[in-house]
Amino acid sequence: MPQGHVFIATSLDGFIARADGDIAWLIARDDPAEDHGFTAFIAGIEAMVMGAGTWAAVQDFDPWPYPIPVLVLSRRLAGQTPPARLAGKVRFLDLAPDAAMDLLASEGVRQVYVDGGKLVRSFLAGGLIDTITLTQVPVLLGGGLPLFGPVPQDIDLQLLSSRAFPSGLVQSQYRVLR
Amino acid sequence: MPQGHVFIATSLDGFIARADGDIAWLIARDDPAEDHGFTAFIAGIEAMVMGAGTWAAVQDFDPWPYPIPVLVLSRRLAGQTPPARLAGKVRFLDLAPDAAMDLLASEGVRQVYVDGGKLVRSFLAGGLIDTITLTQVPVLLGGGLPLFGPVPQDIDLQLLSSRAFPSGLVQSQYRVLR
Repeated sequence: MPQGHVFIATSLDGFIARADGDIAWLIARDDPAEDHGFTAFIAGIEAMVMGAGTWAAVQDFDPWPYPIPVLVLSRRLAGQTPPARLAGKVRFLDLAPDAAMDLLASEGVRQVYVDGGKLVRSFLAGGLIDTITLTQVPVLLGGGLPLFGPVPQDIDLQLLSSRAFPSGLVQSQYRVLR
Repeated sequence: MPQGHVFIATSLDGFIARADGDIAWLIARDDPAEDHGFTAFIAGIEAMVMGAGTWAAVQDFDPWPYPIPVLVLSRRLAGQTPPARLAGKVRFLDLAPDAAMDLLASEGVRQVYVDGGKLVRSFLAGGLIDTITLTQVPVLLGGGLPLFGPVPQDIDLQLLSSRAFPSGLVQSQYRVLR
């Protein structure tokens, strides 16, 4: 089975976006002069999976930021054709997490970037996440779309590394223990 | 007005205890050989405020761990007499956060330790918290008593320091910006 990897930012109180998907609070606190390691992370990744919510947030990004094949897992979008400019880069599929990983395995993919709150939670629940790189932004939003949610049982993590940035971001990398 | 300080541990998904108040998960992951700074923190503090929930969790601690006067803010407990062994150490009062801080100010207190999820949230909402030292434990509980909750508006934080421990705890200290 491929290994799933999460690389995501939250507010200190655990939200990836406001309730309406807004991430302006995040962008406003991002210092573009700081290297938060995304380029190094994505260099070790062969494919990405996201849900419909993340797709909605990123579909208009120009240039398209992902140098790897993207699966958008969505019952609603499945069967639709991605925008022409993303032909060959994005597929819309109605697959459960383990089926998506099986498909990627059959294509020779071993390292998968899993993005978006709902998808991260379902992949975590399925035991499909190997590492989580969590970047915490020094702000309390008080509400919004959470990264984490209910889990079938406690999930122990092993801290691999942690670093603080001058901007106040704290980034910690964990391995998910099963 | 005195300055409020939070020194607290949460799971990586933001819970201070399970829904029933259980913190065995926390104690099991505490390496007593590691100095997480509580002694140094409390040395700079002159009084402590807690709510009824924290009181219920700590009232049987023997020896009593707090070397400073403790106010338990609780409508239900107010008027009751604390246990004899804690006479002169603990007071039960029905005071709102700002009234509690006013009382402490009148007694010459300048640095206050604010503990417990509900109380931290109400003191934060009242602009009464100066620093937050948050120690994140490498486990996902999936549910329980949260540290943070709704806020009247975004609360910006300034990262003062961050450090990781061999046990996997990550402790970050923030100043609350107003």
